[in-house]
Amino acid sequence: MGYTVPAGISNRHVHISKEDFEALFGEGVELTNFKDLSQPGQYAANEKVDVVGPRGTLAGVRILGPFRPETQVELCETDCFVCGFPVDIRESGKLDGTPGCKLVGPKGEIEISQGVMVALRHVHLSTAQAEEAGVKDGDIVQIQFGGPKAVTFGNVLIRAGEKHFRDMHLDIDEANAGHISNGQEGVIVK
Amino acid sequence: MGYTVPAGISNRHVHISKEDFEALFGEGVELTNFKDLSQPGQYAANEKVDVVGPRGTLAGVRILGPFRPETQVELCETDCFVCGFPVDIRESGKLDGTPGCKLVGPKGEIEISQGVMVALRHVHLSTAQAEEAGVKDGDIVQIQFGGPKAVTFGNVLIRAGEKHFRDMHLDIDEANAGHISNGQEGVIVK
Repeated sequence: MGYTVPAGISNRHVHISKEDFEALFGEGVELTNFKDLSQPGQYAANEKVDVVGPRGTLAGVRILGPFRPETQVELCETDCFVCGFPVDIRESGKLDGTPGCKLVGPKGEIEISQGVMVALRHVHLSTAQAEEAGVKDGDIVQIQFGGPKAVTFGNVLIRAGEKHFRDMHLDIDEANAGHISNGQEGVIVK
Repeated sequence: MGYTVPAGISNRHVHISKEDFEALFGEGVELTNFKDLSQPGQYAANEKVDVVGPRGTLAGVRILGPFRPETQVELCETDCFVCGFPVDIRESGKLDGTPGCKLVGPKGEIEISQGVMVALRHVHLSTAQAEEAGVKDGDIVQIQFGGPKAVTFGNVLIRAGEKHFRDMHLDIDEANAGHISNGQEGVIVK
């Protein structure tokens, strides 16, 4: 048996810049913590926005905090289809050339020129956890989940370091394709 | 390189009995062929129904023909969540104990006491194709797809015989989890 990581199922969400947040929620308003996430310092906020695409709208998409330099809308492929966005699969934070969208908040709406993406699958590990697993930051591995809809995900990026903690990022399509529940353990296959 | 099968992406659909169809569309009305499917004699019909669950409704779900002895509603897990159905993963046609639902057609509506399911993954092969692939009806294999979201599906049932033709049944969750397009070839891994 190899090193295991728990599934962290990530529904559609928005990372947001302070400037964009204030345009949507009002000047001087702050993000408020709904619950802490597995990664140190990250939290799901109480605040939500509507994501509007050329074909449809996703209402009430949760914002994750803290603020980031650039606003980023992380969707699964099914969401992209519903909204009419082209599917752009990439590493979080690398936004050049991604589609834009309209965001609607309680106090305003904005058009972002880029930032809509499907996150490339990845595993977070602290430095010590990566060492124990025998992998390093930037490695590509496979992760195997069992059960009635057993599945092995390929092209999984290892993101290791002190800002990370043992968790596999799966979107709703991936979790449902494998009938995977939150916290279910997958095995790293090198 | 092993034997390959093309992905046949199957959106939510309904197989229907003649009796249930007439209750929804009117007595003496017949299913009409919208387009032939990969499996011999099977077709997507022009006719659609609404599938109603305790939490939500899927509007305009396509019926597949011809008629079957029992009505069956095949959904992906994301659909089950939207409608509020428990997820019941099983082989097509084995309906005992599955959840029921309401179906709404242009001329009436019915409650079915069972029939809502998530189809266990399977591959169709003709007798000759199964022989060439080195598998037989009832075998369980893995199927590997490449690309940016490479994925290997486990617990894939082989359904082989003269009523079958080379095709892998994938639902929308599975296709989107692997960024798999219709007709993309997967490899059988034994």
